[in-house]
Amino acid sequence: MEVFFHPSSVAIVGATEKPGSLPGIILKNLLDMGFQGRMYPVNPKYETVFGLRCFPSLLDIPDEVALTVIAIPAPLVLEVVQQQARKCIHHAIIISAGFREMGVEGTKMEEEIKQVAIKNDIRILGPNCLGVLDNYANFTTSFLSWERVSYPKKGSLSILSQSGAFAIALLDLASQEGLGIAKMVNYGNRLDVGESALLPFLRDDAHTRVIAIYMESVDYGRRFIEAARSCSEKKPIVALKVGKGAAGIAAARSHTGAIAGNYAIYQAAFLKAGIIEANGLEEFIDGVKALSMQSPPRGNRILIVTNGGGFGVIVADHCSENGLDVPLPSAQLKEKLRNKLSAFYVVSNPVDLTGSACDRDYHTALTACMAESDEYDAAIIIPLMAPQGMTEKVVDLIADTMKRSGKPAVICTVGGAFTLKIKQLFEEREFPVYPSPERSAKAMSMLLKRRKLQEDVQRSSHTKLQSHKE
Amino acid sequence: MEVFFHPSSVAIVGATEKPGSLPGIILKNLLDMGFQGRMYPVNPKYETVFGLRCFPSLLDIPDEVALTVIAIPAPLVLEVVQQQARKCIHHAIIISAGFREMGVEGTKMEEEIKQVAIKNDIRILGPNCLGVLDNYANFTTSFLSWERVSYPKKGSLSILSQSGAFAIALLDLASQEGLGIAKMVNYGNRLDVGESALLPFLRDDAHTRVIAIYMESVDYGRRFIEAARSCSEKKPIVALKVGKGAAGIAAARSHTGAIAGNYAIYQAAFLKAGIIEANGLEEFIDGVKALSMQSPPRGNRILIVTNGGGFGVIVADHCSENGLDVPLPSAQLKEKLRNKLSAFYVVSNPVDLTGSACDRDYHTALTACMAESDEYDAAIIIPLMAPQGMTEKVVDLIADTMKRSGKPAVICTVGGAFTLKIKQLFEEREFPVYPSPERSAKAMSMLLKRRKLQEDVQRSSHTKLQSHKE
Repeated sequence: MEVFFHPSSVAIVGATEKPGSLPGIILKNLLDMGFQGRMYPVNPKYETVFGLRCFPSLLDIPDEVALTVIAIPAPLVLEVVQQQARKCIHHAIIISAGFREMGVEGTKMEEEIKQVAIKNDIRILGPNCLGVLDNYANFTTSFLSWERVSYPKKGSLSILSQSGAFAIALLDLASQEGLGIAKMVNYGNRLDVGESALLPFLRDDAHTRVIAIYMESVDYGRRFIEAARSCSEKKPIVALKVGKGAAGIAAARSHTGAIAGNYAIYQAAFLKAGIIEANGLEEFIDGVKALSMQSPPRGNRILIVTNGGGFGVIVADHCSENGLDVPLPSAQLKEKLRNKLSAFYVVSNPVDLTGSACDRDYHTALTACMAESDEYDAAIIIPLMAPQGMTEKVVDLIADTMKRSGKPAVICTVGGAFTLKIKQLFEEREFPVYPSPERSAKAMSMLLKRRKLQEDVQRSSHTKLQSHKE
Repeated sequence: MEVFFHPSSVAIVGATEKPGSLPGIILKNLLDMGFQGRMYPVNPKYETVFGLRCFPSLLDIPDEVALTVIAIPAPLVLEVVQQQARKCIHHAIIISAGFREMGVEGTKMEEEIKQVAIKNDIRILGPNCLGVLDNYANFTTSFLSWERVSYPKKGSLSILSQSGAFAIALLDLASQEGLGIAKMVNYGNRLDVGESALLPFLRDDAHTRVIAIYMESVDYGRRFIEAARSCSEKKPIVALKVGKGAAGIAAARSHTGAIAGNYAIYQAAFLKAGIIEANGLEEFIDGVKALSMQSPPRGNRILIVTNGGGFGVIVADHCSENGLDVPLPSAQLKEKLRNKLSAFYVVSNPVDLTGSACDRDYHTALTACMAESDEYDAAIIIPLMAPQGMTEKVVDLIADTMKRSGKPAVICTVGGAFTLKIKQLFEEREFPVYPSPERSAKAMSMLLKRRKLQEDVQRSSHTKLQSHKE
């Protein structure tokens, strides 16, 4: 798989300087990114493209080539793959659309390519895709302009996506949410390489710490479960399964030719594989963000601290909805809070610091409840920035106190420009911030889900081991 | 009620120029907003406050006073209300906290004030609240600085909120979502004036077109249902009920002293009153936005148009989840689309214009499916802005075509800075934009809910009328 992400050399078939041409944009993106491997434009019409020597065909390239990138009209692709076979190039990313997703004719073309590939031991990513982005190798086959799409910073999230538009949207969202990217793969029609081949690779990838999968269908059921399970023992996997109901299944079929199948089977498979499932785009990115920034809590006893009572109430409601406990503090802890906080504040769970709150009150409440007590496993903290007593300092006060406690926290805050600045500061300190009570509670529940799935997987591995021994 | 929002004269008890004092900030906010009524600072310590003549007590004001604003410590409030009784001032907004929400002692103080008020025919808003904002009278009793909170533009949304922090957050969110505000009321402990008194007032308020209610509990069950029902016949009401589960109910009690009660009873009451219920803050603002910008569809046949196939699939899934139909186009309509669109596009529902889409394709698809056909009642449109063929022009093309069709639409789009600009342009044309597929489908379902509730209310009014005649 490494060759797809970090090829020593790459041939870009159809490369041209003409604006709007896909192979041209791909080559230009590679040059702009400072990709360090050898690049071979292939096009019988030109001597050079963007200052690089251009070759009439793959067969004319004098050196070895590790990977071809094919983004020419679908009917011309087969011939290129045949040439590639003769030149012994064992990897191809086929960007071109117009195959299985277009019906009978396209499916036939796709099958022909597949036969050539199998016979000649060629691994193929695509067709009908954006291909890859490797943020550490400065390599991408995306044909989108980085003026329109946020270029992601380096980080630990890797994305597997059947949908190209979705992969791109995730890059944008990741940028907005302060998440860095390791690798992105969009495999479209998945003629060959899919989740089952990519997950083992990402499991062992040093840069990847969290994996996000957008999935319409799966390539090989059993193999996928095994790959995912082995991967999720090391790293959290969050999946967004789409094509659930009749309308969605029909839509998926005309999108990537995917047979989305029975949703209940997917749910069972996810559970078995230790995959955390998200319902909808926001839950997906929210869960990924929580898991990228915080560790799973040891239990489900949640403390809520806020200076906006109404927000405390809504978070409490949504904790209940998501299976999180909001236990009252013990008499002893209550007494301690009572002595340290203003008489106006509500000493309970939620702790309500009211509109009179100032930064240090958060430090006081969290020290007593989280750092110096064992009554809670995690905190949902809702600092609202409208009152004058609330300043930027609250970020470090909260982050330091929580780090000292060794327990995870997620933040909810709502507001204008000043609040957005606070969000950024929190996320620089790796505390995920959510713009609504319900999303903060849901994200916390996904952290807890990770813990439970890990335990399940370990328990069943242990059982297996035991039964092997017997 | 009018006096609370647009008083001819107002006394601000405790006014001072000292920074940080609530009555001082309130007076300053009024001066900054250019409030045109007479203002009387009341404080025995000063001759003038912010250049206005200051009076030792209410009784020393030589003129009639329409409204008092009381934001002094709780134990001092009763005496002011007694003075107010002697001076025949019939309206008071009590901002001060430290009453019912603090337990037995506070409840006693609140009850004493209530007795004086009843005896002397004084209507009270509060205590423990921010009071009001009337965006057309330039009147507010908010003690928050407009540096931290987005000052809302004039508009047609009115907010009723038991929670102050929530009311303020809604103002911020409304600004972000391009929604203008007519009135905001936060009544906190609701000693007297609550939803049942305010809803009839808002029903007849010329500036208010949509009403949003944040509710922990209700003041008078039956009266509320009647008031809300009569109001919702004219204007949509969206409610966020919080304090649902045990944790939330406990939290609500220590927040505003509210007895949140059995959630199922609230759900039944909302249905009867024609109120659209939202689950969570985002659904709340999303529904309010849809209802402020678009009309309810005539039926539930939804067309999805996108240039990102994956997004189409997720929207289709969430349409099913929310009871919306995504019917396939007729053979005739399919043929029409096939003839007008590129052969690569997927002509189905969703209509997938793929990564090759350009602005005009949206016009073409929507003209055929919405303006010139009667197969769909509403559209969810997902223009993704990453491809080069997509420009700002898509906004007018979509908005004009949909307006011509006379059918509602909501927009979903995801992306960075360029996408945010597109969002703003759409919302200037009154098309609500959502940042995720699930939220766009949910918002559409809330538009449809409005239609259904209206029909229910009309049907049952009609039945009543019939039975009266018989």
